[in-house]
Amino acid sequence: MTAATTGGTTAGVVAARQRSAELEELIRQNPGRFRVLTGDRPTGRLHLGHYFGTLHNRVRLQRLGVETFLIIADYQVLTDRDIADRLDEHVEDLLLDYLAAGIDPERTTIFAHSAIPALNQLLLPFLSLVSVAELGRNPTVKDEIAHSRQSAVSGLMFTYPAHQAADILFCKANLVPVGQDQLPHLELTRTIARRFNDRYGSDAAPVFPEPDALLSAAPLLLGTDGAKMSKSRGNAVSLGATADETARLIRGAKTDPDRHVTYDPAARPEVSSLVLLAALCLGRDPHDVAADIGGKGAAALKATVTEAVNEHLAPLRDRRAHYAQDLGYVRRILRDGNEIANEVAQTTLDEVRAAMKTLY
Amino acid sequence: MTAATTGGTTAGVVAARQRSAELEELIRQNPGRFRVLTGDRPTGRLHLGHYFGTLHNRVRLQRLGVETFLIIADYQVLTDRDIADRLDEHVEDLLLDYLAAGIDPERTTIFAHSAIPALNQLLLPFLSLVSVAELGRNPTVKDEIAHSRQSAVSGLMFTYPAHQAADILFCKANLVPVGQDQLPHLELTRTIARRFNDRYGSDAAPVFPEPDALLSAAPLLLGTDGAKMSKSRGNAVSLGATADETARLIRGAKTDPDRHVTYDPAARPEVSSLVLLAALCLGRDPHDVAADIGGKGAAALKATVTEAVNEHLAPLRDRRAHYAQDLGYVRRILRDGNEIANEVAQTTLDEVRAAMKTLY
Repeated sequence: MTAATTGGTTAGVVAARQRSAELEELIRQNPGRFRVLTGDRPTGRLHLGHYFGTLHNRVRLQRLGVETFLIIADYQVLTDRDIADRLDEHVEDLLLDYLAAGIDPERTTIFAHSAIPALNQLLLPFLSLVSVAELGRNPTVKDEIAHSRQSAVSGLMFTYPAHQAADILFCKANLVPVGQDQLPHLELTRTIARRFNDRYGSDAAPVFPEPDALLSAAPLLLGTDGAKMSKSRGNAVSLGATADETARLIRGAKTDPDRHVTYDPAARPEVSSLVLLAALCLGRDPHDVAADIGGKGAAALKATVTEAVNEHLAPLRDRRAHYAQDLGYVRRILRDGNEIANEVAQTTLDEVRAAMKTLY
Repeated sequence: MTAATTGGTTAGVVAARQRSAELEELIRQNPGRFRVLTGDRPTGRLHLGHYFGTLHNRVRLQRLGVETFLIIADYQVLTDRDIADRLDEHVEDLLLDYLAAGIDPERTTIFAHSAIPALNQLLLPFLSLVSVAELGRNPTVKDEIAHSRQSAVSGLMFTYPAHQAADILFCKANLVPVGQDQLPHLELTRTIARRFNDRYGSDAAPVFPEPDALLSAAPLLLGTDGAKMSKSRGNAVSLGATADETARLIRGAKTDPDRHVTYDPAARPEVSSLVLLAALCLGRDPHDVAADIGGKGAAALKATVTEAVNEHLAPLRDRRAHYAQDLGYVRRILRDGNEIANEVAQTTLDEVRAAMKTLY
């Protein structure tokens, strides 16, 4: 209850961090108590930012024994642009990246948002539980509206926190790994769950859990141009890139005039991001990595980073190439996942309809 | 194309009337070209206002051979109130009223909104096609917000024109009987259909029709207290009322001090409404009905109305009583209708998913 209730304020973030530490302990003690909902928009290949930011954590939770539902949020692509390009290709890339990173379809259910009608139906009762004012003041929506590629804010963008509630609650996930900017979103999901239970459930048998935020400390990795890593800027090493492409991209990375390599993210963001990337791949402390290079300069740093990234990603890339040879199998994973998600969604919708007394 | 495009303006209403007259002619020539979507919210028993306002027209279209989908709009009950009371009972009453009025389940598909997940999923792509500004300026939504029982406008109310588009377009209805206040709603449905076709369809094969409004001239029947007929005010004769209840209600109806009965809706609304009701039941001109009563006064008018209503409704009430003895059959009609609607919705959703390239 304490975690996400105070939203995106500093105090809220501190509380969410503390709660997340408690949750990590509870996960270690009893992973079977938890079900995670997480996912991505199919807008292109995943890169190292996604890998160290979210994928790595998902695989970690999966290995701890936490059941995970992984949504390919295709409708969500339409919240901030008019049309979703090459969805088919992007979905295939996501699936390959997941398998490459170690997501195990035997333990993680991968499904597409648009393939689960019973999940999507939940949007209607959920929209009846929130006011227009509540939707309008959601800071993430405000922010996404500010960065939207659309000339006018669409109804889909505006109602986005309610879709997200449906995505999370259809499978009764009680744990959602998030960055701190997403805390207000999850807060509205908790509100919707609570109001549904108050209005239609009983104290003894609430229909929905109030899911907890699991704050993950995503490392601050910059793109090779010093800006935020982004698929569309071409400044990020994608998981599926070749070793040569990786070397070329890192060779062109922005650094600074100081030849002596140090780890100082605030004063030297570009150099420090490269150091951090090597450290993450090597499983070492970034200060030690920087000290080893010292006065050997940016070229030596880049060589270290390239080698570390290529070595770390080699087994992932092998797996990716292996699965890319068997797209029939990859597609079947999604179809099987959709089937499981549809069963789960139908069961939840039946409960919702019974609670709302709309089973005639 | 000309009908609803100009919305609720006077010119728009005139154009919609003209288009509706053309449509009536087309229906007579070839009823098989048309599919109607219409329906009700399950909030109580239907009364004479509903009967002469909409039910009668539905039965007429059905008899002309127009295929009809009849939605029991249960989620819509939640747009202007927090909780939907006694839905089960209200749905049963609606079904009985439909059957009593002559809706034939062999020719009309009766289904419940909440039972059709593939229909409801359409809300998501449709919401991506309309802006928040467009939703906010819909006059019917503005009006319903003004009369809402909720303290704050819910997300479900705000997005209501988009649900209605899903209700109409899931079965590709091309004809929607409406009152003139509903023209702007249908206009947004037409906009959504057009935008979807532009964005995802081809000129040769548009996914959705742009449905036409069929303006029905609902007679102005007032409640027995002179106010608008309303289930909750207890001022309306419900279809399922007994002959005695009907007599009692009409006996208490408001009239005016002028003993001479005339038909003059502007100057004498209460008396004229009673005259009109008798005329509708008798299939006569209201002026003639008034002339026959003349100076015999309000008591004679009420006796005429009571007899006319009870005689007109007698066969309906017999049918209603008959079906009320066989609720198992009545429920099966809804389940069968839900099944048909689910098949139709699934087919449409498959087309939508193919057009949006979200079949992976």
